[in-house]
Formats: sequence, structure tokens, C-alpha cells
Amino acid sequence: MNLRDYLAVQQRLVDAELDRLTPPETTHPATIHRAMRYSLFAGGKRIRPVLCLEAARTVAGEAEGAVTAACALELIHTYSLIHDDLPALDNDDYRRGKLTNHKVFGDAMAILAGDALLTLAFQVLAELAAPAERKARLVAELATASGTVGGMIGGQVADLEGEGKPPDAALLESIHRAKTGALLRASLRMGAIFAGATEAEYAALSRYGEHVGLAFQIVDDILDVEESSEALGKTAGKDAAQHKITFPAVYGLPASKTMAEAECVSAHAVLAPFGARATRLHELADLIVRRKS
Amino acid sequence: MNLRDYLAVQQRLVDAELDRLTPPETTHPATIHRAMRYSLFAGGKRIRPVLCLEAARTVAGEAEGAVTAACALELIHTYSLIHDDLPALDNDDYRRGKLTNHKVFGDAMAILAGDALLTLAFQVLAELAAPAERKARLVAELATASGTVGGMIGGQVADLEGEGKPPDAALLESIHRAKTGALLRASLRMGAIFAGATEAEYAALSRYGEHVGLAFQIVDDILDVEESSEALGKTAGKDAAQHKITFPAVYGLPASKTMAEAECVSAHAVLAPFGARATRLHELADLIVRRKS
Repeated sequence: MNLRDYLAVQQRLVDAELDRLTPPETTHPATIHRAMRYSLFAGGKRIRPVLCLEAARTVAGEAEGAVTAACALELIHTYSLIHDDLPALDNDDYRRGKLTNHKVFGDAMAILAGDALLTLAFQVLAELAAPAERKARLVAELATASGTVGGMIGGQVADLEGEGKPPDAALLESIHRAKTGALLRASLRMGAIFAGATEAEYAALSRYGEHVGLAFQIVDDILDVEESSEALGKTAGKDAAQHKITFPAVYGLPASKTMAEAECVSAHAVLAPFGARATRLHELADLIVRRKS
Repeated sequence: MNLRDYLAVQQRLVDAELDRLTPPETTHPATIHRAMRYSLFAGGKRIRPVLCLEAARTVAGEAEGAVTAACALELIHTYSLIHDDLPALDNDDYRRGKLTNHKVFGDAMAILAGDALLTLAFQVLAELAAPAERKARLVAELATASGTVGGMIGGQVADLEGEGKPPDAALLESIHRAKTGALLRASLRMGAIFAGATEAEYAALSRYGEHVGLAFQIVDDILDVEESSEALGKTAGKDAAQHKITFPAVYGLPASKTMAEAECVSAHAVLAPFGARATRLHELADLIVRRKS
């Protein structure tokens, strides 16, 4: 199967499971379930769940049942987008080409819908059909990657506080490792944990996750400069307008592109021990660096 | 030990554990840890953790280690207060006699601090020193009680949507069972799960939790009418001002007081199988109904 068809199959698998895990719009109180589903099914690329599923396959040869754990990552990612877009934070009106959650449902419901998706992520993991020891590790992994110390929330805070500061390479990398890198790395780690990886397999997939995570963010920064809002489905050029610390701001565009490629090369290298089992992970690393939105 | 001294001991135990579990103010990024700690240590009565600890003691005779699980309840409770107080929701300036989180740290940081406390609650449970099977059950219990279907967030949504609607007894009870009742019942259940309760013990403690939970909310509604803002440490009379559906609005004050007493009587009754082991739970039920703030 070519990569494009493979991705379409994975995305359908993830979408069907997200639909099963999220209360229907008819369940009381209906408004919040509508708000949760609005953002969950707004056309996300499901990068984190796909990485999780593929990590499980790379370890175990198949990913039976891993899609449920993979969906917990998408629930967390979606909650973070909803809260990030709020007027008090990034104040964005569009996301993936659609009005943001608070523009449709109001700020109060957007805050609660984010809280609900965050809560549901952990419920889903706790109720997985998997050995309890693995469920507890999955919850700990996801919570740590989403938290304040080296995790997503910590990165968001450092990013907010970095606005307007002089471009600084060390600060930039620490923000991005936390803000997007931690959850991307957790995607690989959770697939590994679910599939019962050895310590060596877990370590290799973690390093792969760190490299694609950093590449992902460098490319995001580049796209924000180079692409139109229409192509991105969100407001382009916001980083510069908000005086955010970005890779292009610190290193310039050409060096940023070289760095993204270098992270991609490293990602390939750390997959060596898996041989042909990691073919899709190799393809996914290339895709993350070459994407246009 | 009399009840007052007992409570002081429990509160110190909980406060010390919350302090251990929450990153220090010096940990990067410092602002969010300051914001989290500001609300965590704003003088809360620790009712949920104390109920959890006492449920564990009632089952197992002691509560060694249960304080960590008990703190997860306080982390959830505190996050819900921070988000509830936001301008987009209840827009409250004072809580427990102090400025609310967003008044001190701004809306963005208050949203993120709430998210962080919510996330930390599940991390704490996943990393407990307890059998993995119990940890997974604790995560599932807390997530369900905090969620949208019969849980805290669902109750908040129903409460927001109920503002200005005609007083309706069925709607009132469903809001309160979800909004405050679910987390109070979870406090008892989590103590029971941690201590390895039998199904019968778990069921009895659940019913006790439902009765004290409803009593707690009826009393809250009564205090909002009868007490001053100074006595409550938060704005009194807000329910009427916001046209909330409350017990006094539906039943009047005298009937509301009788109902709170009746819930208290039921709470005592369901503890019968535990005999003298449940002495503190009996005292706590009385305290919840007779409190003045």
C-alpha cells in the first residue's frame, strides 16, 4: 500500500475510534458533546495517533487494540488547541480552515470542552483492554508529556512568556521540546508501552520521537513564514506578529530548513535496529519534514 | 481526639502531601507553579481528601498511603474552582476570602494552571505506590466523576444552561448530583478502592457519598442566601443574582433545611454495617450539614 492510502486507512481507523469513545451529541448535556465533537472532527491529520499505532506495529508486528490508546493522544492534542485559541491566549478565529471552538460555542463552553477532552483522555486509558500495569504507565506517560515540567503546558507558558524577548537559541529549543516535542515523543512511547516493548526498543522509539518532534516544530515555524493562511487553514504570519521566538527568527530560513533535514536524518538513523519493520516510521519522518500545511 | 483536632491533623497531612506532589515555585516555568500553588494553598477545607482518607480507614482500619490518592481529588476540585471563577464562566473576584486566580495571574495563566492541576491529578494516581489494578480503577473513577456524563463538567454545563430557567425539581437534582455530588461520591469510592474494599463496602460508601454530597449542595445553596460574603469568603447572593436553579428557589428555605437533615439521616443509616469503624464518617456527615461556610 502506498503512503497516501496507508494514511487514509489509519485516519479512518482513528476517526471511527474517536467517534466510539466520545459521547454522542444526543447525550445530555448535549452542548458540550457537540462542542467536543466539533473540534475533534475538524479535519485533523491524526499525526500523533498514527505515530502511536506505527510504534506499536514496529514493536509487535501488529497494533490490535492500540488505536484506543492512540486516541487519548488526539484528545489531549485537541483540548490544547481549543484552549490555545481562546481570546485570553492566542486569540485565533480560524483553525484547520474552520471557526475556532470559542467562536462557535462561546468562551465558557470552549473552556469546558477542553477540560472534558483532557479528562476523557485519561478515562480512555484507564478503561483500555490491556494489562493494568501498562495502563498505569500509559497514564503516567501521557500526564507527564502534557504537564508543566518539560511537558506541553510548561512549553505553552514558556512560549507566552518568551513573546517579545530577544531570539535565544537555548530558550527556543527548550520551548519547542516541551510545547510540541513532549507529546510527539509520548506518541511513540505510548505505542511502545502498549505493545510491550523492551527497554532498548522504548529508548530507540523515544529518540525517534524527539527527532521528528523537533523537525515537526521547525517545519511549523517555517510554514508560518512561507505559506498563506489559506494553505495552512489558520492565520499565517502570527509568530512574527506576536514576536514569538521561532527557528527562522533565530537562525534564518535557510539554516532552519537544513536543521529540519538534519533532524530527519537522525530520526532515520535511530530506527536502524528495527530494520524493515520500521518502514512506515521512515516514511512518516520524511512526510513530517516535507509537509506543506 | 475530638473532631476539631482530628480535622486539623488531616488537613496538615493533606497539605504536606499536596506540597510534595506539586512542583515547587522555583521549578521552570515558575509562573505556572506559583499560580497552581496560589489556589491549592488558599485555605481550602480539604473535605474531599478527608472523606477519601476516612473511607480508606473505615475499610482497612488505617489509611497508609491513601493521602496521595486523596490529594488527586483536591487537585481536581481546585482546577474546577479556578476555571469556574474565570470571567467567561462565573466571573468571581474572590474565593475563600482571597483574590481569584485570574485576578492575580491573568486569564491565560489561570486557564493553564487549571489544565495543569487537572493533568497532575491523573499523574499522581498513575504513579501511586499501589497495585496497578487499583491505580487504573482510581483513574477511571476520578475521570468519570469529573467528566461530562453525570460528572462534574456535565453538571457545570447543565448549571450554566439552567440559568434563568423556571425552578424545576428534577433538573435541580440532576445538576447537583453531577456538579458536586459526583466528585464527593468519588472521594468515598476512591478511598474504598485504595483500601481494597469488598463490593458491599464499596456500595455502602458510595451511598453515603451520595447522601452527604446532596446534603453538601443543599447547605451550599442555603448559605448563599443566609450568610454574608465575609462569612463565606466569596460573593454571597450570587445564585439569585444569576437566576440559578437552587434548593431554596425550588423548595423555599425551611423545606431545604429539612431536606439537608434528611440526607444526613440517610447517610448515617447506610453506615450501619461498619459499626464503630465509621465513627468519623458519622461526625463528618453532621459537620457537612451544620457548617456555616
